[in-house]
Order: sequence, then C-alpha cells, then structure tokens
Amino acid sequence: MYDLIIVGAGPAGLSAAIYAARRKLNFLVISSEIGGQGAGAWLVENYLGLPEINGKGLVEKFENHVKKFETKIKSGVAVKKISKKEDGSFEIETSQESLSGHTVLIAAGRKYRELKVPGAEEFKGKGITYCAVCDAPIFKDKIVAVVGSGDAGLDTALQLTNYATKVYLVNKYAKGRGDNKDLEEKIKKNEKVEIILNSAPKEIKGGQFVESLVVENIETKETRELKVSGIFVQIGSVAASKIVEGLAELNQKGEIIIDPKTNMSTCPGIFAAGDISDIAHKQIIIAAGEGAKATLNVCEYLEKY
Amino acid sequence: MYDLIIVGAGPAGLSAAIYAARRKLNFLVISSEIGGQGAGAWLVENYLGLPEINGKGLVEKFENHVKKFETKIKSGVAVKKISKKEDGSFEIETSQESLSGHTVLIAAGRKYRELKVPGAEEFKGKGITYCAVCDAPIFKDKIVAVVGSGDAGLDTALQLTNYATKVYLVNKYAKGRGDNKDLEEKIKKNEKVEIILNSAPKEIKGGQFVESLVVENIETKETRELKVSGIFVQIGSVAASKIVEGLAELNQKGEIIIDPKTNMSTCPGIFAAGDISDIAHKQIIIAAGEGAKATLNVCEYLEKY
Repeated sequence: MYDLIIVGAGPAGLSAAIYAARRKLNFLVISSEIGGQGAGAWLVENYLGLPEINGKGLVEKFENHVKKFETKIKSGVAVKKISKKEDGSFEIETSQESLSGHTVLIAAGRKYRELKVPGAEEFKGKGITYCAVCDAPIFKDKIVAVVGSGDAGLDTALQLTNYATKVYLVNKYAKGRGDNKDLEEKIKKNEKVEIILNSAPKEIKGGQFVESLVVENIETKETRELKVSGIFVQIGSVAASKIVEGLAELNQKGEIIIDPKTNMSTCPGIFAAGDISDIAHKQIIIAAGEGAKATLNVCEYLEKY
Repeated sequence: MYDLIIVGAGPAGLSAAIYAARRKLNFLVISSEIGGQGAGAWLVENYLGLPEINGKGLVEKFENHVKKFETKIKSGVAVKKISKKEDGSFEIETSQESLSGHTVLIAAGRKYRELKVPGAEEFKGKGITYCAVCDAPIFKDKIVAVVGSGDAGLDTALQLTNYATKVYLVNKYAKGRGDNKDLEEKIKKNEKVEIILNSAPKEIKGGQFVESLVVENIETKETRELKVSGIFVQIGSVAASKIVEGLAELNQKGEIIIDPKTNMSTCPGIFAAGDISDIAHKQIIIAAGEGAKATLNVCEYLEKY
C-alpha cells in the first residue's frame, strides 16, 4: 500500500515526485512516457532559470533531477481504471498490475486533439504527424502544411522552416490566437511561410503517403488543394482525465476540477496538478509549481487521514 | 503609465517578468534587492531541473534568464506607498520617484523575523546575523549558536559545521519542526552540533561583539549561558505586505489574501504572487509558477480593463 501514487511524469508529476521523495513518502510514479506535452516543444524560453532550452533537453534535466532521489518511476504503463475502496484508499489497475494507494495524484496532462476529416485516420504516420520535434527532419526539402491557430502552430511552423522548402500555416481564424508575439513576428517575416487565414482542412489525399491537403475558406467556401508531403496538426489538446470519470468531477473541457488551494479533486484522496486540472493557464513552470504544491497538500491529508 | 509594475524580484517577481516580457507588456520591476529569501539558502534541492544548487547560484540563473528579455529592473528601490487613483490606476511612491501603473503585482516576499530579547538590537551586525550564507565563513574556528526550530535553522546549523568548531541549535520546541527529514538526520549525526530543546533565548551579552547567549528552558525555567561569538537567527519571517495595508485585505499572518485562481487581491488591479500571498506553501518552484500565473491573469485583466 503506497502513501501516494503519482500518475503522469510531466513537469507536474516529476516536481511532485521530488517533493514526495524529500518528505520520505512511500510513493510510486506511473506513466505512459516521461516528459509530457512540453517534451515536444522546439524552444522553451519561459521556464525560470533555464533559458532557451528545447523540450527534450528540459525533460532530460527534469528526469535526471528526479533520479537523484530514491524514486520508483514506472514508464510504459497505462492506467486502466481507478476505484475507491471501502476503507477510503484506492486501487489502480494498470496495463501491468494492480496497485493500492492511500492517495492518488493525477498529473497525466493532456493528449493532442486529433484531426477529424476524411483521410486523417488513413494517413496518420504516413505524412500526418502531431509532433514537430519528432518528425520535422523527415521533411527536409519538402513542402509541408501546419494546421493550427495558436502558439503550438506557430512554433511548429517555425521549426519546419529549418527543413522544408515551404510551409503553409492553416489558421481557422482571421488572425493568430497565440500568446507569443515574438514568434508571430518571426513567422510573418519568414519568406518560407505562407499563412492561410479563415481556413479549415477539408480532406487529405494521397497514395501510400500524403500528397495534398484540401482547405476550405470558412467565409467564401472556396477550396484550395495544397500539394504537401507532410501535415503537422496542432489543434489543441484534451485532458487525459478519462481514468477518474465517475470518481472526480470534471469541467466542460474534461479537466479535473480542483480546489486551487489544496489541489484536491471533488473525490477526497484524489489530487490533480498541472494541465489535467482546471487551472486556467497551461505552462511548464506553473505545472511544476502545482506538482510541488499538490504533494505538500497530500502530506497534510495523510497526516489527518 | 505602465501596464504593470512588479514589486519584488524573487522567484515570483522574476518569473512574472519573463511572462510580461514575452507578452510585450509595458512593465517595470522594482525591488530592494534581487533574489528574495531563497538567495540565502545553502542548498536548494527541489527546484525542478536545477538539482543541488545554492541559493545564490539559483538567483544568478534567474537574473540572467530575465536579462535575455527587454526588461527594466530597478533594484535598490524601496516602495513607500501605493495608492489607487480615481481612474482605477495606481500610483507608487518609491524612495526615488513616483510611478503610475494600470496594475501592480506584489511579489515582495517575506522579511526575516527579528529576535526581540535584551541585546538583540545592540549586537545586530556585531555577532547577530540573519543570513548564514552571507556570514558563516566569518565564524571559522569559533563557537556559534543557531536560534530556530524549522528547516531554515537546520540548514543554517549544517552550513555552520563547515566553519565553526561547535554549533548550538536552540529549539523552542520538544522536537524539530522542519519538513526536511534528511537534513534532520544529518544534524543529529553531526558531532559538532548540540541541540538544546525546549529552550528560548533570554539575553545576549558581550562587549564590542557578542560573547554569550543566555537561553532558558521553557519548562524548568533553568537558564544556561552559552559562550558564543556568533548567533544566527532563523525564527521565521513576516510578509512584506505593509505597502498594501488599507488597499488590499491581509490575513492574520499579514499575507495578502488572493483569489487562488487569478492571484488578484481584494483590490481590483492589485495582484500578489509567491510568499507574500496567502498561498499555504512557501517554496521557490511554487513561487515561480505563481508569478507566471499572476502575469497571465494580469493580461486578462488588462484586456477587459
């Protein structure tokens, strides 16, 4: 029986693990992968103390930090179901075993939202990708499209200009929706990038691999077929909160509702931190702080338990 | 007229500055010093991504990070008074000038609580100190006392064992009140440290400099005169919140009460982040996250303003 089982190993889960190790809790981290969504970032400029680092480098630093403590991290593990037992503790069924814990901290982050148009499923991994850091170099000297209106779309487009000969940036809105004005300016100045506003993907065509993306102007309904070999999709993400459905209350976006002071969900003993929670701003440094805060609140809960 | 004036340059203020710079706000950071209380830490082990760093090194990394952006930081500036103007903006009188801002983010942290016994004022800077990192090397081959019951006291005592021949740790309680069990074990094993429990300082004696510390056992009322050249005081801290008294509501500890989702105080337009706010846990990584969150909420406030 663990004091605490941390589900997820992004910034929130790893920061939580450091605090749990220092408090000498009997705990375990389980996760499908190490790093979370931030690992896919090309350039992270806003994690205080580590300027201009890429997502992969940042995650390596996080992981190495956690390894300095006696911490059990099981990666490659999927959580199937969490249930509350009569005595108030929890049973977690994973893809490998069944675990018991007095408390659970859900820090499983978010998953990329997938494109839902004809061809999107068929060409997944055959030209359609959700991770620029992973796949950008494959498209050296090719023409690619990025679908997305926010910072992630801009970031992806900018990364791709280092490899591709041309990058279409397909934006559903009349203007960018990102927060990062620097990035927006860089994109606007870059001659390789053509921004297509007010437009949404309609169909993906190809043979064995992607050959073109059909986009439609939302106002004029005019369509345009872009000849591309790669399509990078950055249309947001959804909270990976299915595992607590029925136990803890979710908001309309599927995020776990927490008491912002204690990180506890509506189910006593289940805590959440980072991007999976209903905290308004999804940022690496905020998630790291929230993970630490959640563990300290778990300790207080365990003392009264 | 600034969009945002950030008061304080600890982890919360500096993280807030990075976010403000990236959002291209017209802003300014004013502070008496750079770094905050964390700068005095001997060893910081729990700031995710930067393992085993001292407070000074961490603050240098923070400052260098902020300097990568176009950021105006004025240090050596004390805030005298903040007042709200009729149009909803704020006027800030500093030791140097008068400034105007649409919003103010108070991230001024906490100040060390001072010892109040006979001799404490007289011998300040003459053997009595509040910063081990600053002053520990002065007491090489001397006998010193640390007054404090929490982690800061333990940390200070451990630092001093590298210099002093003997370290008395004077603890008001029957056992340690710190969170860091590792540190507690290290202290207990260290032969240079003598822990004096259930005892409080009663008087400080000396000539030109400190010569002894009289402590009294709280239960038996027995006194003991410790021959020491240095006294390191770590009896907690108080929020540096006087500047918003009368404007924003404070809790009983003098901390600025904030909406934990938005970081806004009870005075619209005044935000707070980090150790000066009523957030339960005072930690560097939490303060850094809170600073980022506060700026993003300031941006939302300014959009509606």
